[in-house]
Amino acid sequence: MQAIVNISLKEGVLDPQGRAIARSLGDLGFSEVNDVRVGKQILLDVDETDPARLRQRVARMCETLLSNTVIEDYSIDIADET
Amino acid sequence: MQAIVNISLKEGVLDPQGRAIARSLGDLGFSEVNDVRVGKQILLDVDETDPARLRQRVARMCETLLSNTVIEDYSIDIADET
Repeated sequence: MQAIVNISLKEGVLDPQGRAIARSLGDLGFSEVNDVRVGKQILLDVDETDPARLRQRVARMCETLLSNTVIEDYSIDIADET
Repeated sequence: MQAIVNISLKEGVLDPQGRAIARSLGDLGFSEVNDVRVGKQILLDVDETDPARLRQRVARMCETLLSNTVIEDYSIDIADET
């Protein structure tokens, strides 16, 4: 099954990359852009058929490796889950 | 309105960052992980009330700055669109 993890900086954490993109977009004429935040999207292909257990395992992966929980939030989507 | 842009490497493009994460997860005992691909998620806050026009503008941003269309695919979600 596939799991999608979206990792974003927590509210209030400075995002210099987003700031740089916002400024560049402004310079390119996209003056309607107020704010840009940049996060990561991690696609995992996992040998696991139980969506609930997959979600639990992926949460463990986020806590131990994928995200820095001090400054980042993560959310998990399971592709085959309805 | 908010637009979310997901940028991922095209199929067949080598993803060393994903490879490194997959190996690290294996080392940490997550041996069920087959493959990992890493992409970017860009959240844009834009002064635009028309979802169709917003999508069009954001597509232009992707083509000109946000994504490298030679090796990356992008998809656009409009937050308030139903």
